[in-house]
Amino acid sequence: MSARLPVHSMTLTTAQPNSVGVVEPQFFTFAQPPDEMKLVSGKKLGPITLVYETYGTLNADKSNVILVEHALTGDAHVAGYHKDQTSKKPGWWDIMVGPGKALDTERYFVVCANCIGGCSGSTGPDSENPATGYPYARDFPIITIQDMVEAERHLLDHLGINQVLCVIGGSMGGMRVLQWTVSYPERIRLAIPIATTSRLSAQAIGFNEVGRQAIMGDPDWRNGNYKREGVIPNHGLAIARMIGHITYLSDKAMHNKFGRDLVESNGSTFTFNTEFATEFQVESYLRHQGSVFVQRFDANSYLYITKATDYFDLTQPSGSLRKELSRVQAKFLVISFSSDWLFPTYQSREIVKALRQNSLDVTFAELQTDKGHDAFLLESAQLSSLISNFLNYAID
Amino acid sequence: MSARLPVHSMTLTTAQPNSVGVVEPQFFTFAQPPDEMKLVSGKKLGPITLVYETYGTLNADKSNVILVEHALTGDAHVAGYHKDQTSKKPGWWDIMVGPGKALDTERYFVVCANCIGGCSGSTGPDSENPATGYPYARDFPIITIQDMVEAERHLLDHLGINQVLCVIGGSMGGMRVLQWTVSYPERIRLAIPIATTSRLSAQAIGFNEVGRQAIMGDPDWRNGNYKREGVIPNHGLAIARMIGHITYLSDKAMHNKFGRDLVESNGSTFTFNTEFATEFQVESYLRHQGSVFVQRFDANSYLYITKATDYFDLTQPSGSLRKELSRVQAKFLVISFSSDWLFPTYQSREIVKALRQNSLDVTFAELQTDKGHDAFLLESAQLSSLISNFLNYAID
Repeated sequence: MSARLPVHSMTLTTAQPNSVGVVEPQFFTFAQPPDEMKLVSGKKLGPITLVYETYGTLNADKSNVILVEHALTGDAHVAGYHKDQTSKKPGWWDIMVGPGKALDTERYFVVCANCIGGCSGSTGPDSENPATGYPYARDFPIITIQDMVEAERHLLDHLGINQVLCVIGGSMGGMRVLQWTVSYPERIRLAIPIATTSRLSAQAIGFNEVGRQAIMGDPDWRNGNYKREGVIPNHGLAIARMIGHITYLSDKAMHNKFGRDLVESNGSTFTFNTEFATEFQVESYLRHQGSVFVQRFDANSYLYITKATDYFDLTQPSGSLRKELSRVQAKFLVISFSSDWLFPTYQSREIVKALRQNSLDVTFAELQTDKGHDAFLLESAQLSSLISNFLNYAID
Repeated sequence: MSARLPVHSMTLTTAQPNSVGVVEPQFFTFAQPPDEMKLVSGKKLGPITLVYETYGTLNADKSNVILVEHALTGDAHVAGYHKDQTSKKPGWWDIMVGPGKALDTERYFVVCANCIGGCSGSTGPDSENPATGYPYARDFPIITIQDMVEAERHLLDHLGINQVLCVIGGSMGGMRVLQWTVSYPERIRLAIPIATTSRLSAQAIGFNEVGRQAIMGDPDWRNGNYKREGVIPNHGLAIARMIGHITYLSDKAMHNKFGRDLVESNGSTFTFNTEFATEFQVESYLRHQGSVFVQRFDANSYLYITKATDYFDLTQPSGSLRKELSRVQAKFLVISFSSDWLFPTYQSREIVKALRQNSLDVTFAELQTDKGHDAFLLESAQLSSLISNFLNYAID
């Protein structure tokens, strides 16, 4: 494969030879009253705005669409750079999306939208409630993974895309991948759910719940009305993020990354200081993750989105995953990571088994890695070639 | 083995045929100024009170002593009932300690003391600081696992016990077991560290740190002076406990215990309620664990004791566990649980390997169980017989 020149931004040539360059978020608003979108809960929501980005070019018969689904705290900015942020790091899956990359923007038209309930441009609890002029806060209705998919369906209709070549995503993104194949079987040709599950385990619900309790117990949460009252429950949200982060890594990954190393400022010995300040590198890392997260994420969104993942259960209503997947038509590549203990491989195997019981074409790969759940976000030649090979094989 | 009648309390006959019956906590105070105990940190602490309990009878040559070491939030009340609490549940290891049980009180004299830094009767941050008349709070010095053992050594001296037949404990109790064999090799004949580690992993430190951050970020923590200011950081402490509890169980144990079952009051469907109230059984369980914990445990103690476990590192100062264990004399029974992911089996194997490199007599058993880290606290014929057989073999 020949070297490619960046299309949009010469300033990025050296650093990012395969970057999609500068991209601009786009917005789509629908479900204007009185035609609000009906949610699984029975409640209605509208108007709804989705922020989305696209990379590559939609071909004439609109058959080259790859729909990327982001994870819990992800957003629509998958690859490249925003105009005013060229010096910052690129979109969250820049390793995967770009010219010559696994989701090759010279072949495919890649689309990603921020989920509803989110806080990165799409309508969520932090958006203005037209009825009050204030953020929805807890007046925002409970949303589900199905609702998120339904909102995306409106977007695809708007873009005139009837069928998606491939829907792909990790973690909560993988849940939406699965939901798409169930909700709209005829609109999905290929599906790549990564590091995901057909339903959260008690342990995963438990971690979500502790995070929510941390937020809701923060006095600055103000029963959800913190924005209106001019405060932010940073402490609770940071705690939730710190818990999350441990679950995204593996024991081995944390050992390799930090071990029992101390922060440099303290030298090589313990402080015996009752400030309980940062001593181990891992403490410093987690505190940092917590503190940067609160700058970009909304606490109420965290409640709503984690709840959506708790509710997600593809085995319902029948109780049989096999039965609930019986209308699925897509070809599948299911990927898990050996050290993922949030959504362990056995949960991917359950999906694979149910798909195969329905005589579907399923490729399954458990990648051997120490990097834990978040491995799908990390550079991996193996992951990339698995995905690009699947796309090549399945299309031919 | 013939049936035994309870010795102390007839009211317990039916429910607890092998109970030690009613027991009374005892107190030992030492390190009176100016003879304070010197801590690893270089600081001094005194006076120090230890609360302890004993079960069974000390024999003439004082050769039948079993020293039990409690875990992170445990206490001196191992077995039987306190006088005013006969209707409540017995001590935390009543399944293990009593007539005819693995730690047979008809043969052994069992001793357990609450660790220093604790809040269940021994001197800790909630104790009165003689210098101020208020609780120590953060004026309490940082304590280590070594310091806890040193305080217990004072207790044994006070009881006239020169050598311990066996020291046994799980989790942080296991750390003190290991530390005893290193600090006072000649005083320990047998050692049974269970579900423990020679040093915490980055992941385990991470979980401790999130718990501490939850406490210290609670506005009611008041920089540690909550008691003086008439408040309690219940929220932060409950969050810390909820996190801890998830790590004490296993994915499978939580699945078996709760699955995705909903609390009964909500019926069989989701509420779609933006109160984010308890819906899943696992949420209810964790919230309950948090709320009962704050009634019995001190938030500052949680900071100090978790810090002591973070600091614990038997490989130091040389960096070689083998070297640091070279003076150990005890015979060992090392036990791990297959589903323990807080202190996984590989960490027990590291201990076993280092002991064997020193030509010590080591029996190792990884018990197959779904119950996770807390398995050592649960009824298990396998665990009990392993321990009683080891005691029999090693003594003969």
